[in-house]
Formats: sequence, C-alpha cells, structure tokens
Amino acid sequence: MKTVNIGLIGAGRIGQLHASNIISSPYMELKAVSDVQLDHLKGTEIERSVEIMTTNPDELFSNRDIDAIFICSSTDTHAAFIKAAALAGKHIFCEKPISFHVTETKGALNIVNEAGVKFQVGFNRRYDKHFRRVQECVQAGAIGAPHIIRVSSRDPEAPPLSYVERSGGMFMDMTIHDFDMVRYLSGSEVTEVSVKAANLVDSRIGEVGDVDTAIITLMLENGAIAVIDNSRQAAYGYDQRVEVFGSLGSVSADNERKTNVQISTKDTVTLDLPKHFFLDRYEQAYKDEVAEFATAILEDQPLRCTGEDGYKAELLALAAKQSWLENRPVAVKDVEVLEEHAKSE
Amino acid sequence: MKTVNIGLIGAGRIGQLHASNIISSPYMELKAVSDVQLDHLKGTEIERSVEIMTTNPDELFSNRDIDAIFICSSTDTHAAFIKAAALAGKHIFCEKPISFHVTETKGALNIVNEAGVKFQVGFNRRYDKHFRRVQECVQAGAIGAPHIIRVSSRDPEAPPLSYVERSGGMFMDMTIHDFDMVRYLSGSEVTEVSVKAANLVDSRIGEVGDVDTAIITLMLENGAIAVIDNSRQAAYGYDQRVEVFGSLGSVSADNERKTNVQISTKDTVTLDLPKHFFLDRYEQAYKDEVAEFATAILEDQPLRCTGEDGYKAELLALAAKQSWLENRPVAVKDVEVLEEHAKSE
Amino acid sequence: MKTVNIGLIGAGRIGQLHASNIISSPYMELKAVSDVQLDHLKGTEIERSVEIMTTNPDELFSNRDIDAIFICSSTDTHAAFIKAAALAGKHIFCEKPISFHVTETKGALNIVNEAGVKFQVGFNRRYDKHFRRVQECVQAGAIGAPHIIRVSSRDPEAPPLSYVERSGGMFMDMTIHDFDMVRYLSGSEVTEVSVKAANLVDSRIGEVGDVDTAIITLMLENGAIAVIDNSRQAAYGYDQRVEVFGSLGSVSADNERKTNVQISTKDTVTLDLPKHFFLDRYEQAYKDEVAEFATAILEDQPLRCTGEDGYKAELLALAAKQSWLENRPVAVKDVEVLEEHAKSE
Amino acid sequence: MKTVNIGLIGAGRIGQLHASNIISSPYMELKAVSDVQLDHLKGTEIERSVEIMTTNPDELFSNRDIDAIFICSSTDTHAAFIKAAALAGKHIFCEKPISFHVTETKGALNIVNEAGVKFQVGFNRRYDKHFRRVQECVQAGAIGAPHIIRVSSRDPEAPPLSYVERSGGMFMDMTIHDFDMVRYLSGSEVTEVSVKAANLVDSRIGEVGDVDTAIITLMLENGAIAVIDNSRQAAYGYDQRVEVFGSLGSVSADNERKTNVQISTKDTVTLDLPKHFFLDRYEQAYKDEVAEFATAILEDQPLRCTGEDGYKAELLALAAKQSWLENRPVAVKDVEVLEEHAKSE
Repeated sequence: MKTVNIGLIGAGRIGQLHASNIISSPYMELKAVSDVQLDHLKGTEIERSVEIMTTNPDELFSNRDIDAIFICSSTDTHAAFIKAAALAGKHIFCEKPISFHVTETKGALNIVNEAGVKFQVGFNRRYDKHFRRVQECVQAGAIGAPHIIRVSSRDPEAPPLSYVERSGGMFMDMTIHDFDMVRYLSGSEVTEVSVKAANLVDSRIGEVGDVDTAIITLMLENGAIAVIDNSRQAAYGYDQRVEVFGSLGSVSADNERKTNVQISTKDTVTLDLPKHFFLDRYEQAYKDEVAEFATAILEDQPLRCTGEDGYKAELLALAAKQSWLENRPVAVKDVEVLEEHAKSE
Repeated sequence: MKTVNIGLIGAGRIGQLHASNIISSPYMELKAVSDVQLDHLKGTEIERSVEIMTTNPDELFSNRDIDAIFICSSTDTHAAFIKAAALAGKHIFCEKPISFHVTETKGALNIVNEAGVKFQVGFNRRYDKHFRRVQECVQAGAIGAPHIIRVSSRDPEAPPLSYVERSGGMFMDMTIHDFDMVRYLSGSEVTEVSVKAANLVDSRIGEVGDVDTAIITLMLENGAIAVIDNSRQAAYGYDQRVEVFGSLGSVSADNERKTNVQISTKDTVTLDLPKHFFLDRYEQAYKDEVAEFATAILEDQPLRCTGEDGYKAELLALAAKQSWLENRPVAVKDVEVLEEHAKSE
Repeated sequence: MKTVNIGLIGAGRIGQLHASNIISSPYMELKAVSDVQLDHLKGTEIERSVEIMTTNPDELFSNRDIDAIFICSSTDTHAAFIKAAALAGKHIFCEKPISFHVTETKGALNIVNEAGVKFQVGFNRRYDKHFRRVQECVQAGAIGAPHIIRVSSRDPEAPPLSYVERSGGMFMDMTIHDFDMVRYLSGSEVTEVSVKAANLVDSRIGEVGDVDTAIITLMLENGAIAVIDNSRQAAYGYDQRVEVFGSLGSVSADNERKTNVQISTKDTVTLDLPKHFFLDRYEQAYKDEVAEFATAILEDQPLRCTGEDGYKAELLALAAKQSWLENRPVAVKDVEVLEEHAKSE
Repeated sequence: MKTVNIGLIGAGRIGQLHASNIISSPYMELKAVSDVQLDHLKGTEIERSVEIMTTNPDELFSNRDIDAIFICSSTDTHAAFIKAAALAGKHIFCEKPISFHVTETKGALNIVNEAGVKFQVGFNRRYDKHFRRVQECVQAGAIGAPHIIRVSSRDPEAPPLSYVERSGGMFMDMTIHDFDMVRYLSGSEVTEVSVKAANLVDSRIGEVGDVDTAIITLMLENGAIAVIDNSRQAAYGYDQRVEVFGSLGSVSADNERKTNVQISTKDTVTLDLPKHFFLDRYEQAYKDEVAEFATAILEDQPLRCTGEDGYKAELLALAAKQSWLENRPVAVKDVEVLEEHAKSE
C-alpha cells in the first residue's frame, strides 16, 4: 500500500494532535516536523517516530520525499507557508482560519489553484459522526426544504487573555466553525449577517475589544434563516448541538455525554456531563479528517472541506464583526467588496 | 345523554378517588355512598354531591335508580357484595383483588355470569396510555412474536405494617397488578411461576411473614418468558416500566417524570424524579377506567378487564407464594386444582 | 367555601375551553355567558350549566351577582369590555392580546388601575409545569446570572388565511407568548428587538403581508440576550422548548410526547411525537390559570401575569414588526414614544 | 519507557483484535504470533509488524524475550497453554472461558499461582466506561445496599450452528459475561442459580441441545437478587444494559447509539440503533483491557479481573445448565462439589 509522506509545521497543541493521528494512520508517514523551537518535543512520540526535526520549514518544502504539508503554526504565518508549499507542489492541510484577511486568504488560494495541489482546511466538525449524519439527512431530503438552522456552540471556559488578544476575535476564532457548520448543513450560502453580542463571561475580554457571548443570525440564499448562539464559558462543559428544521420535519444532534449512566436517588436523577472539550468530543473527527485527507490524495478524490470553505467562513467572521460594531445587518457581498478595496489601497 | 347511576361501597382512599372521578364524569351520576362510618366524609365533595349517604350497603342494592355498584371496601367483604349486587341486577366495578381465595372469587364470578351483569376489576394500569400503547404495538405485530416480557414495578415506600398484615402478602397486594400486566401485554396465559424473594427493605415485614423484594419468572403458553422485579421501596419514587422483546424488536414504556426539565451545572446534569406514587402516575388511568366502565354499560360493549382477569391474576399470586415457600417452580394448573380441593374439604 | 361568580364574553374555541374549566372548578361558578350569537352552544355543557345566556354583554356588567368577567371575544372588542367591566367593579381575565394598539391597551389598563380590580392576561404558558420549573430554577439562582435565553415556538400548522388576516400578524398573534416567556424566564425587561423573518411555509401568508418563519433577538436590561425561533408549521406537531443558559449552567424544558413508549426494530428506534397542539400541551396550564385567577380573588393575592405583562408583550410585538419592516434593530422605548405620539395626533 | 513483549496464540477474530491493540499500544510489543495455520494473516498488519510467525506455540514459551502470552485459541486448548506459559514464567492473558470444566480450570490456575505469574481473563466488559462507572457508583455507596441487579444482554444475531455446537452452550459462551458482570457490579458472590430458558430464536439451536432465550435469577451472599435476561437475537442490534437498584436508589447504564441524532417528521421521531455488536460497542474496552494488563505487569499492580473471576463465572454457567435441565434452583456450592467429585472418579 502506498502512503502519503507528511511534513508538519507548528507542533503546538493542535499540531501535536495531528502528528499523533498521522503517526498511527496506516495511510500516512510523518517524515518531518518543523517548529520555531523543538525543546518541548523531547521524549515525545513525535521525537521517537519522526526522521527530520528542524526549526527551518524550508527543509520541508525542498524535501522531495514529502508529499503534503500540515500547516499548524500561528495564523499570521499561514499564507506564506501555503504559498511556499503550493509552489513546491505539495498538497496542503491548513488549520483554520487560513488568515485574518480575506484578500490574503484569496491570494494564497489562487496560488494553490494554479499549482493544482489539494488543499483542506481544518474544519474538523464536518467529520463528526453526529453532524455528518445530520448533513446526510438534510441532503437526502428527510426534512424537506430547510427553514431554520440552529447551532449552539459553547466552550467550557474562556481561553487565556493572551490568546484572546491574538485570536482575531471570537467570531474569527470560535464562531468560524459555526459559520462553516451552517454552510455545511444547509448546503447554501449566507447573504447577510446580523449580530447581537455582549461581554458577560469575563470583563477583561471586553477590555481587549472582544465579546464572549453572541447571537448571530444569518440569511441564506435558499431562503432559510440560521441562528448561532455562542458563549465562551459553559459551566457544564463543551456544548455542541445543531438542529435543521424544514418543511417536512426536523433533524438534530445532541451532545455526547461522558457515559450513558443514570443515577436516581431520593433527591434527583443525575446524568453525566457532556464531554469536556474539543479534544474529547472531536477525538474521532480529528482522526477522520486526516485520514480523509490522505485518502483524497491517494485516490485523487475531492475533499469534504476546501480552501473555498475556509475563505467563505472568514468572510462571515468579518461580516459578523462589522454587524456587531455597527449594530445593523451586514450584506456579505458588501464585506467582500470592502475588503478588496481596502487591500488595493 | 343517558348517564349511569352509581352506588359506591367503601369510601377509603381509593373509594374517594373513584367517587371524585364519577362526580366529574359526564357519563355517570354518583347517587349513593355507603361506608362503615361516614364521619370522615364531612365537608368533602362527596357529601356535597351525593344524595344518599348510608352505613347500610343494602340500601344501594335495593335502590331501583342505581345501575351499577363500585366495590371499594376491604377485600374480605368483596365476595358478599358482588353476590348481592349481581343478584340485584347491578353492574359491578370491583377493586383488586376480588378476594384472597380463588374459589371464593370463582364462586362470586359464577353468580355474576348467571346474572348477566357487567363486571370490571380495578386493574387501572391497563388504562395507562403508555402501557396501552405498548399493548397495541404487540398486538399489531410490531415486535413480532414476544420472547421476553419485563416488568419493573417498585413502590416508593413500604405501606404501614398494619396494612402489610392484612394485605394478603406482597404477591396478592402489589404483584397482582404485574401479573395482570404480563397477561395484558403478552396476550397469553401463564403456565408456571418461579419466585426468588427476600426481605431487604424492612425486617419487620419479614417478621410478619411477608417479603419486600422479589424476582418472579413466568412461563407463558405462547412460549415467551416473563420476568417481574418488585421492591416495596424505591428511594426515587414510583417505578413502573415495561418492555416486550420479540422476534422483530422491542417495545418499552419508561416512567413519567414530574417535568421534562434538565439542569446542567459544573457538577452534573439533573432530571426530575418520576411521579411519586400511583395517584400521580395513574391519575388519568383512574379517570379512564371508570369512563370506560360507564361507556361499556351505556353502549353494551365488552370490558377491557373482566372478572376472569381478576381471577387469573389471583391464581398467579397464589402460585407465586407457593413457589417462594417451597423454592421451586410451580405449575399454575396445580395451584388451581389444589385450591379447589382445599375448598371442597 | 366561597366561590367566584363568573360572566364570560365570547364563547369561541378559547372561550369554551375556559367555560369548561370554570364549570369543573370548585372555586368558581359560571353564572352567565354572552356571545354575538348563541346557536353554536345548543346542547353543550355550557347550555346545561349556565343560568344566563345572552347576546347582550351589558347584562353581565350590570349583574350584581357576577364578581369577575372573562373576555374571550375578538381582540378589537377587548378594550371596550375591559373598561365596562372595570367601571362595574368586576375583576377581569382577558385573553391576549389586550388590544392591537398599545395606547388603547394602556388606556384600558389605566381604568382598571383606577377601579382597583384584579386583571389577568391569558398567558397560559406561565402556568405550564415545565416552564414554571425553569422559571423557579432561574429565580433560585441555580444557573447563575442568565446570559442566553432560547425559546423555540412552532405551531403544527398555519391557521386559515382568514384568521391570519385578522390576527394582527404573527408577532402579535403567536410570538406574543414567546415575548412574555422571555420576560417571565429572565425576570428582566427587553430594551431592543431585532428580527429576521421570511415567508417559507405558505406563500399566501406573504401575500397578505405577514411572515411565517422568524428569528427574533432581544437585548435585555440585565445584559442577557434572548433569541426566539418561530415557525407556523412544524410537521411533527407543537414544538415548545425553552433554555436559559447562565454563568453557572443551563436549565431547559423539552416537549411532552404523547407517550414514553420506545419501539426498536431492525431499521430504527422510534418515539412518539410531541403533543399535537396547544389544547393538548397546555390542557393543565389552562386549568391552572383560571384556578389561580379565582384563588387570587378569593384570597386577595397578586397575580402571576398582569395587565402590565400584556402591555409589555404587545410593545415587543410592535417593535418586532418595525424591526422586520425596516431591517434594523429597534429600541423598545422608541416604539413606545412613537405609538403614543401617533395616538395623540 | 519499558514495554511488555507479547507472544500471542490463536489469531482468529478475537486474537487479531488483541494483536491490533497490542501493536498500537505504546506499552507493548507484539514479538510473536502462533496459530495452527498462518495463511489467513498474509498481507495483514500482523504480518507487517511481527517478527516471529509460527505454527509451533512452544517457540513462544521458550523465547526468553517474551514476557507475556495471550491465549486466544479454541477453549479446549487453553488449559494446556496456560500450564506451559506459567511453567515458562510468562504472564498470561486468557480469553473466556478458561476451560469447559471447572476442575481443569482450577488445575491450570493452581499452576499459575505456584508460578507467581499474573493472569487476566478476558472479561472485556469490566473495562467498558459505562459499566465501570456503574460499578464505581455502587462501590462508593451512591445507591446504598444493592437489592436487585438487572442485566439485559442480547446479541444481534445467533452465531452459526457450527459455532453453537462447539460453544459449550449459551450459558458458558454468552451468559458467562453476564455472570461476571453480576459479580463485578454487586461486589458479592452468587450462592444459587435458577434458570428458565427456551428455544425461540432458531429451532436448530434447540436441536443441538442448546437454548437461545433465558431468564436467570441469582441469589447473592449479600442478600441481593440478580436477574439476567438473554437472547441470541435482538433485531435492533447489540443490547447491553445493566441496573443496580439499592436501598438509596438506582444506577443504570443504557446502550450507546450509533449517533445522537434525532429525526422528527409528521409520522414519528426516530433515533439511531444501538451499536451493532461487541466489536463496535466494546472497541475501547478491548483497548483498555490490554493496556491495563500491560500496566499491571510493568508496575506490578493487581488486575481488574483474575483467574479466580474466570473460575467463578464458569461455575455459574455450569449451575445454570443444571438448573435448566432439572427445572429447579441449584446451589453453587453443590455444583462445585459435584464437579470435583466427577473429576476425581
């Protein structure tokens, strides 16, 4: 069996997770890892399994044995690495967001398209078995024409303030997954974004100009309306639920609990909490997304989520921010025009 | 619209419940109530609504305006009242058990049959919407041929010891409903009873010769096996669940909770307890059983649960007691023969 | 025991429901019923139970035996009947909405206040045991400070077009209950309303200038954000769910199903549908709201939902309509000012 | 990090599963595999990863590099391999049942004890997160003293008749897991076994002297009563549920469904089926049991399930068969005495 040889850039939390899944996959071999420093990998599975450990990412691009690059470094470095990888003819898996600026994103994707390499963006939730089943039901027409799409997406706790400051804001950092989920589940494009947001979890998040709680309403091309509710802090754990309601009925996916155990006493009936965070909840989805990437390369198949999907979600994050700042509905096409204009000046 | 005129004997807890449901039913009129004493009814809805209040039940039998008699007095008085009512040509609703002795029960039912009056025994659970739906599914063949019938039936707390002593034992007092449920759900007759029982809830129940915890296994004519688990004390409230498992699948009914509310905090997810006891859980079933009784009389329709059903369940209670005492499976037909023989001596 | 003597105006669907609950309540006596015509009541329980049947409502106001008036006639008649009842010193139960114009509503309520009679508006959902439990949890601090309130409220099918045309529009007719629910559950006032709505269920509803699908976002004084999703047609039945998410967790209420039965076969596991419509789902709530009205009068207690609650919900319905028409967030206080100004011209 | 070197005997379905989990575990290395023939392993992960592939198991016992032996061959070969492994000083993981004869099992375990090696029997369900959580709740006293233990254990389909014939019968092949579960969850020993069984799924199973449907009641030393219901064929998939009911309440574990998706249409609400069979349901449990085996060896810790647990479950399987054949409760100690007597003759 042929395998895909991988070079991975950026071995932080998510980079290490992908590395581990690549190592245990029969379809891939992790040939090289590059990071700005390597000390934190001493004694890990990565060090034991990987041939080339370097602080110079160019070693990966120039290595002829490497078929594909995983870009897991900080967002501001993505565009440059995408271009380098594409020009070197490597397939690309890039973490979300592709960049903080849609014109930069578009520029990088243009080079990818010209190079003809495959490009997958890390919207892991598309690979979650629950959401995938919802999407299949909608696509199969089980609930008729979609009318209302609801996404509840709440983190168990707010990230450190240092992270918040570099995150691009909640809409770009966290809601971006939900924007993608709305597009994935509805099979339609968003035309308008309306945001109501607040700073209720931690006032320091507000002090650095971000929000931690939001209701985001989206008008879709197919006539449906979508609504996302976000919070940076759900006391009971990671809350990830969706519902698509349509002309013939409704399909929804509930959280996964830690176990299916129920305890009944004289005071109450108790269930286990939902899985605590994305590493638990999406453990299998992370495996499946890298496996599908490898398979798509080996069998030259289309990808479940592409650069275009990354671009569209970023556009919605920008529209959301503008809607929040100006307290009004924002047409998506106006944001796109504005961004391109801003860049060209 | 014609109504059924009712005389009720025995205005204890269950008698008052029936009285209240009769009073608010458009199909019935409660004409007379008889009890050994009447003081406890002063100021109640019964006193306000009922014409004849008496300590002499014969007044009910001889009253030409009365169409039907509800017998809610203590079990040892049932047989005599049934005979008197039947001979007076009144339709009869009798609380369970009909009597503590199957030959006495049979004797009373023979007179009922000869008199040609309608007779309903108070197996209220047959009128519960959940169990009724299970029965309809089984009857409609939705789960194929039944293989295993499971009944969980647990009270929230043990009755007072004085009640236990006069109750005829747990099998006759409490399990009798479950025996009927097995017959109702399976549509088949029980051929053999095997009991394992214990005294785990309250040692005083054991001291008066009764049990408070049991597993009862029943072999059925149609080949299926049924199993009942009983406890006199479920800390979390009234626990009444059934499952019928068959060649094509399974149908089950879960408890009703007090509300459908769910509370999630950092420690746990909590649900409401099940409804606390039979008056809550079967509130509507009690209304429906008296309404069906009235309708069956008015429209001359067959009843959902008859004297024969009362007799069969008593037989199973006796078999259960014998199985427990002798620690062996007991054939139902042997109990019947034995009982008749004992009586004839 | 003293009872409250009731006169009821308007014996349509909801009027007859209240009449039936009044008749079977031990706390009330239905003395008189007035409607524009009386033929449809022939042979009903109302005709059998009620002394005075009239087409002249003034007979009710002038009748000294009558303590309280139920106003269940068409909305455009409410204000006049409220004034007449209040001036006659009768307590008032009025169906929602009080009127289609907030200044008219305010005028009627001013007279009520001057007269010192009790006034309850028919927000039946406040009496639903599930929502009441959610409200109590929030009030008790179980989920901390509310951050997000979610209300899903979907009818099983759209009303006849003739009804839609006279309904005051979906926000005034249907969402008005949800506006009240948000105020009830949050314990806070709404400051701003943002609506995205569409015509997806039936194009004829759009042709008469109304919507059938909407997402409504509300900013609250306490900082929380509420979101309502509405549809005029849920294929699976009446869908009425709420969630209050706060700093310490979340409390939610799910639908009631017809039964708790579950059927498992080789193809699927199936559950029963939710109760089909408001008469099923809120059967007990309707009983409880009239019982609490009677008790409040008899014991001179405050009411769970007052004229002020009716007024506030109407204001939100107007704000919603304006937000939809102008595609922008609308401040509630601006609507109030505008309405008063419009009236004074 | 030190690893445990493994030799595995018997690479059938379950042997290959263990092999795969050993290969991907960081705590173990699969050094050698022995089977009666090796053709079926050509091109598999095992062939790619394992140094020594042999048809001679003695090569494993004599190999000094091998620390532990996995015995996954047919049941009739277990005892001999256990003895050989123990005498060679290897730790042992043995699939259930250890043998079909308790004296043979005891003989093998005696040699294990003398050799002082670790011995784990393959009761994988003890490692299932749901059942483990139930066991921890019981042990922590959350439900007080256990009164009733219920185990529902149903396979999705009957095994091939050829398998049934060599399986030792349903009690030894399938119920043995449930016997162990009762001991695990209750923390108590079984004193008496009562069985009611039938042949309802497939008459050919009856023709070879086995049953396919059973209710098994167990009396426990601590006074509790346990009941197991078994079927060889549940149309809806693998059904594995437990409940422990005690003086302070109840704890139960429900099945895992394929997804948490719910679809509501005008006809019904549907959920996904339970996971289809043990390889799906216990996928993680199988990983955890081999991981715990390795950890126990590396850190010299006690095991979660030992040879003694295997022996006790076999004894219960024999008692069950006897109870079924003789239609009476059977004391476990009598079976033990009888078996030893039979052997000594």
